[in-house]
Amino acid sequence: MRDVAIIGVGETAFGELWDYSFRDLGIEAGLKAIQDAKVTAEEIDAVYVGNMSAGKFIDQEHVSALVADYAGLADMHLPTVRVEGGGACGAVALLQGRMAIASGMHDVVVVGGAEKMTDVGEVQAAEILSSTADQEWESVFGATFAGLYAMMARRHMYEFGTTREHMAAVAVKNHKNGALNPVAQFQKEITLETVLQSPWVAEPLGLFDCAPLSDGAAAIVLCAMDQARRYTDAPIRIAGSGQASDFLALHDRRDLTTMDATVVAGKRAFAEAKVEPRDIQVAEVHDNFTITEILAIEDLKFVEKGKGGPATMDGVTALNGKVSVNTSGGLKARGQPVGATGVAQAVEIVRQLRGEAGKRQVVGARRGLTHTLGGTGATAVVHIFERGA
Amino acid sequence: MRDVAIIGVGETAFGELWDYSFRDLGIEAGLKAIQDAKVTAEEIDAVYVGNMSAGKFIDQEHVSALVADYAGLADMHLPTVRVEGGGACGAVALLQGRMAIASGMHDVVVVGGAEKMTDVGEVQAAEILSSTADQEWESVFGATFAGLYAMMARRHMYEFGTTREHMAAVAVKNHKNGALNPVAQFQKEITLETVLQSPWVAEPLGLFDCAPLSDGAAAIVLCAMDQARRYTDAPIRIAGSGQASDFLALHDRRDLTTMDATVVAGKRAFAEAKVEPRDIQVAEVHDNFTITEILAIEDLKFVEKGKGGPATMDGVTALNGKVSVNTSGGLKARGQPVGATGVAQAVEIVRQLRGEAGKRQVVGARRGLTHTLGGTGATAVVHIFERGA
Repeated sequence: MRDVAIIGVGETAFGELWDYSFRDLGIEAGLKAIQDAKVTAEEIDAVYVGNMSAGKFIDQEHVSALVADYAGLADMHLPTVRVEGGGACGAVALLQGRMAIASGMHDVVVVGGAEKMTDVGEVQAAEILSSTADQEWESVFGATFAGLYAMMARRHMYEFGTTREHMAAVAVKNHKNGALNPVAQFQKEITLETVLQSPWVAEPLGLFDCAPLSDGAAAIVLCAMDQARRYTDAPIRIAGSGQASDFLALHDRRDLTTMDATVVAGKRAFAEAKVEPRDIQVAEVHDNFTITEILAIEDLKFVEKGKGGPATMDGVTALNGKVSVNTSGGLKARGQPVGATGVAQAVEIVRQLRGEAGKRQVVGARRGLTHTLGGTGATAVVHIFERGA
Repeated sequence: MRDVAIIGVGETAFGELWDYSFRDLGIEAGLKAIQDAKVTAEEIDAVYVGNMSAGKFIDQEHVSALVADYAGLADMHLPTVRVEGGGACGAVALLQGRMAIASGMHDVVVVGGAEKMTDVGEVQAAEILSSTADQEWESVFGATFAGLYAMMARRHMYEFGTTREHMAAVAVKNHKNGALNPVAQFQKEITLETVLQSPWVAEPLGLFDCAPLSDGAAAIVLCAMDQARRYTDAPIRIAGSGQASDFLALHDRRDLTTMDATVVAGKRAFAEAKVEPRDIQVAEVHDNFTITEILAIEDLKFVEKGKGGPATMDGVTALNGKVSVNTSGGLKARGQPVGATGVAQAVEIVRQLRGEAGKRQVVGARRGLTHTLGGTGATAVVHIFERGA
């Protein structure tokens, strides 16, 4: 299979961007990535767009053609593909772009992710997020997205002694990292007290256990490795990718405290990359809720099952800890424009592996990982990235 | 690039299927295709689902994980991908599935397409279809999907002398074919008079110039050609694929009477397959409106530009004419469950190339083509299929 490299990255600011439309977001991120890669429009073979729910957020389907058009690429008549997999869409799009190049059909592909969430009210936005869970067996009975994750948190507390303080430590760490990221939605440190005293969203998850609603976009230019040196001295190689699905509804799963999709996706990605969790210096993992990061670092085998909370508290996943997790601030502090997430995570890893992460640079970062979830874990995608030799 | 073959096909009935849910549709089509291919669950590497707007039609995103789950595949933890490109989603999904195998990452992939449109009212359904046009510059000002196609029809009449009778001839032919297709939504012949006397939807398009709203699903099992003989004596090879985009809004296009995306996608597919339009015996082309089929057969070079209407009237595209177009009945008579369209078209071509099309069998069909549109032509996908040597 042909090796694929990332040769350019770009992203918008993340936040409540009321002066940006969806198309503005897609264009800005895409053009930044294209400029960073120094490719011309003529060299681009295809455009992939990860997007969860533009149909419901902005009443617009067919957003891949939209973004290519408004980025000035309509005359090139490029193939454009929108990919959706709940909150994992950006990561799934990246995998599809990788396959398109690996197949030999394309050489240079732009992969973007975007979501414009704040044009609808907060209740409506919460309902839209819930539509990635099982509508007929969960959402329709009133289970919110936060409510479903709260059940996982409660079970994790029961089985492993995880505390609210352990979960709060995730938020504190990610806000601390976000304060060092100039595009983060929240660039402000918080304390354990802030999290613990925040109002319930779904007990035991308080407001500061939850990632925000956000607008934003991120983009990446992929290129066949055998051509990447034409564009950059620092191609970042996709060393391994794994994707897995699971039962859509929580009640059908084997276990509430392990996401099998993460476990399987991780195994597949590590096997392809021929590395172990200990070989990863920096990881962006899905932290739509604080409990989610704890599950992720356990299921990816960065820490022992059940020890995710104490490990976070002990700084194992802090900046320049054993493995630096969510140096961007994660979904929690960088923000959570759903369709953009998987791509934005990869952008952060590329910055870290290039040594361009500024104040949040992980010392000696040679290999990074992204982990992205759809729904309550019915989709999981793991990518492993390496600095080119 | 590794050759890819179709080794199994399946589909549901098409129509107003009030006793079927979206998941019922996906499961039925998928399981039929899997049975037809004689693959086991363990042999499947991934699931792709073409779907336009489940978020809006049934309030459920993340439908690829949903379908895999309810088809009993959750324990396999397969990668599942939903693909959207307006009405072309099924054809785009097929291309992604092809690339996944061509890349060497997968060997056996199930590609499904499904839409459940009749759970919402007709006005709401029309609004949802319009969300694949440009919401900010077309739909929001009241342009309906039919209205946009009506402008193309009017301009084609003005430039080339196309008449309402020419367009009506498309509907008559497709209903005649649909009457021979046991899964078609309309299995009843109609006359030119029926079409001409039908009430306006958007002048010059009457009710019988328009494809219906439908529920339905179709599925295909793809396999690396080098392994296909394990499963079937009659693998159908994907000989060429082309996809192209265009300006999303009609007013930005070079010409209202030529769909550049179709022209470019067709050229790409013919070039890869190393054949000419005259080498195609059977084609399924996008006929969401009668004018659309006329544009398609012109832009694919089956007939001269401007002559699509007279050619249809003269039987050039009739069953066992020079090229048999829409032998399934097309979107017009087989039905138009949007996300399913591209896959259902491919199912029909496979049946024709296998010699299993019953009363609508095209004599001597060796090579077939599908053409699928998204929006008002901002996405076009063309696939060319051949009987294995």
